Amino acid sequence: MTELKNDRLLRALLREPVDTTPVWIMRQAGRYLPEYRATRERAGDFLTLCKTPELACEVTLQPLARFPLDAAILFSDILTVPDAMGLGLGFAEGEGPYFERPVRNAAAIRNLAVPDPEQDLGYVMDAIRVIRRELDGRVPLIGFSGSPWTLATYMVEGGSSKDFRRIKAMMYVQPEVLQQLLEVLSDSVAAYLNAQIAAGAQAVMIFDTWGGVLTPEAYRSFSLDPMQRIVDQLTREHEGRRVPVTLFTKGGGAWLEAMADTGCDALGLDWTTDIGEARQRVGARVALQGNLDPSVLYASPERIRQHVADVLERYGSGSGHVFNLGHGVHQFVDPQHVGALVDAVHELSAAYHS
Amino acid sequence: MTELKNDRLLRALLREPVDTTPVWIMRQAGRYLPEYRATRERAGDFLTLCKTPELACEVTLQPLARFPLDAAILFSDILTVPDAMGLGLGFAEGEGPYFERPVRNAAAIRNLAVPDPEQDLGYVMDAIRVIRRELDGRVPLIGFSGSPWTLATYMVEGGSSKDFRRIKAMMYVQPEVLQQLLEVLSDSVAAYLNAQIAAGAQAVMIFDTWGGVLTPEAYRSFSLDPMQRIVDQLTREHEGRRVPVTLFTKGGGAWLEAMADTGCDALGLDWTTDIGEARQRVGARVALQGNLDPSVLYASPERIRQHVADVLERYGSGSGHVFNLGHGVHQFVDPQHVGALVDAVHELSAAYHS
Repeated sequence: MTELKNDRLLRALLREPVDTTPVWIMRQAGRYLPEYRATRERAGDFLTLCKTPELACEVTLQPLARFPLDAAILFSDILTVPDAMGLGLGFAEGEGPYFERPVRNAAAIRNLAVPDPEQDLGYVMDAIRVIRRELDGRVPLIGFSGSPWTLATYMVEGGSSKDFRRIKAMMYVQPEVLQQLLEVLSDSVAAYLNAQIAAGAQAVMIFDTWGGVLTPEAYRSFSLDPMQRIVDQLTREHEGRRVPVTLFTKGGGAWLEAMADTGCDALGLDWTTDIGEARQRVGARVALQGNLDPSVLYASPERIRQHVADVLERYGSGSGHVFNLGHGVHQFVDPQHVGALVDAVHELSAAYHS
Repeated sequence: MTELKNDRLLRALLREPVDTTPVWIMRQAGRYLPEYRATRERAGDFLTLCKTPELACEVTLQPLARFPLDAAILFSDILTVPDAMGLGLGFAEGEGPYFERPVRNAAAIRNLAVPDPEQDLGYVMDAIRVIRRELDGRVPLIGFSGSPWTLATYMVEGGSSKDFRRIKAMMYVQPEVLQQLLEVLSDSVAAYLNAQIAAGAQAVMIFDTWGGVLTPEAYRSFSLDPMQRIVDQLTREHEGRRVPVTLFTKGGGAWLEAMADTGCDALGLDWTTDIGEARQRVGARVALQGNLDPSVLYASPERIRQHVADVLERYGSGSGHVFNLGHGVHQFVDPQHVGALVDAVHELSAAYHS
């Protein structure tokens, strides 16, 4: 195994000392980069891009060629697991994802089985192996999955939703049926992330994009408990190092204590939570990742730098902070502004790690 | 002036003793009611319905004929104020609202003036007068407006938005321009609500639908401060009674203390906040309105009753609670389920007011 040349990310996620705050950016390989759009064009469609390991590797590495980022993140989609379960994932131009065969009743849910990651999601594992080879130890590679609740919303709604009425009707009318779906998803995600770790992912993250639409009680039962079931099953050490696990519930700022109780290593924060207050609440137990408003990247490099300084100051001195946006980078952002952010983090954060 | 026969709502909003917890429902006059759809059909389009006082009165009263609700709420749209400013409000079928002339730069914003409510929004004041006459003191009438920030999002984006990129770019690039827009909106909303109070609204509510997409700091500057400017200007007594003011920021559960500091009488809560915890935080200073997940109405009347019991128990004994959903009732809900909710509130809450 090649020694990691830059292990800031892994150290910060475990709250070990670092020289500067590590930074990566959600959707750092994405449409704001012209080279991404060119590869996407060459692939023909988004799913082919995800399912062709060489192309997935190519776009994964693109932002690293531009910016001194401290991590690569596997280029993939959160909906690969339900696709492997046979739901038929598709993307309508400008409309977002859809499933040809949504699951909306007990019978459909009973028929779902945990996919075999190497067999049914082999293209993801192949991509990880290719990316690790090409990275050659420059920075660590992050693997990821959608959370069971988030995957379930797309599987039951059949695509994106504003009011989540089908899955919420299921939740309030037949909670035991939804729990069955969440169980098979928890076990599927655990197997999927463990296979990613075996293939070479050095940290993993669970994206709970839609946990924030739940009541506190329902969040615990239908989003957090399934994530707990995953954390309990994960491989926590590989290649002689701990594999840090990050949980990120968008809109979950009220529930950080409960999230930290799962035994994960770090929490992702969106921009609606003050990272300094979050640190006071849970910073002795977990690292924090975030949390600049992605819209700040529309401002000038000078203003971006001020906002970066503000987030760093709010977090304060010492390790345990991974700089990131509070959600994915927007497609209309100028790539130079992303560069300004990355540089500002490295330059301004050194003072907090003396 | 006719004596109010049922003043539970006004008493609860002021934390005065009541016999049962009052209940009304956001969007109680709406598409889930067949009689609403019939009137809407007759009107031809949504805006004509809003702008014809007799029709607005008709739909305002429809839910009261079905359910023993404790309040009527003016039937109108949150975007009437920018429409009166000359932006040209329209509704694309199934697409939501849009403005023909969005405001996207300093010059367009400088040209905006505070509308004269009686002249430019006379149809709203006429509707209030007709509704008060027809209500004949049965229950109080609630007036409302969108918050400055929420109105500004539609005015700058030109309609609904997922990422609010235009207004957020303005916020981070030209904050002083956005502040100018929010100032004219604050003064416009204050004049509008005062005119509603003069016309007969017995309580008013400010809907801050999109405050929850802001950072804590930006929420204060761009959403809460403008609402404060309104609260400071409002007529607080009319017809010999206090006119309670309710602020509702969807997704604003983290900021209840700051909202209560404005001097408003009550806070609306969405379903992501525990109403018992909210009461512990601010219940000695303000009443609380909410906060059942609207999706509970897809469940059976028996389950709805259980969820109502749960919210009542979380709030606990004593006055200061106005039962409501955490957001508007969905259009696909069975009206009988709304009836089950209203009955459950009255039956189960009496025990908390002995």
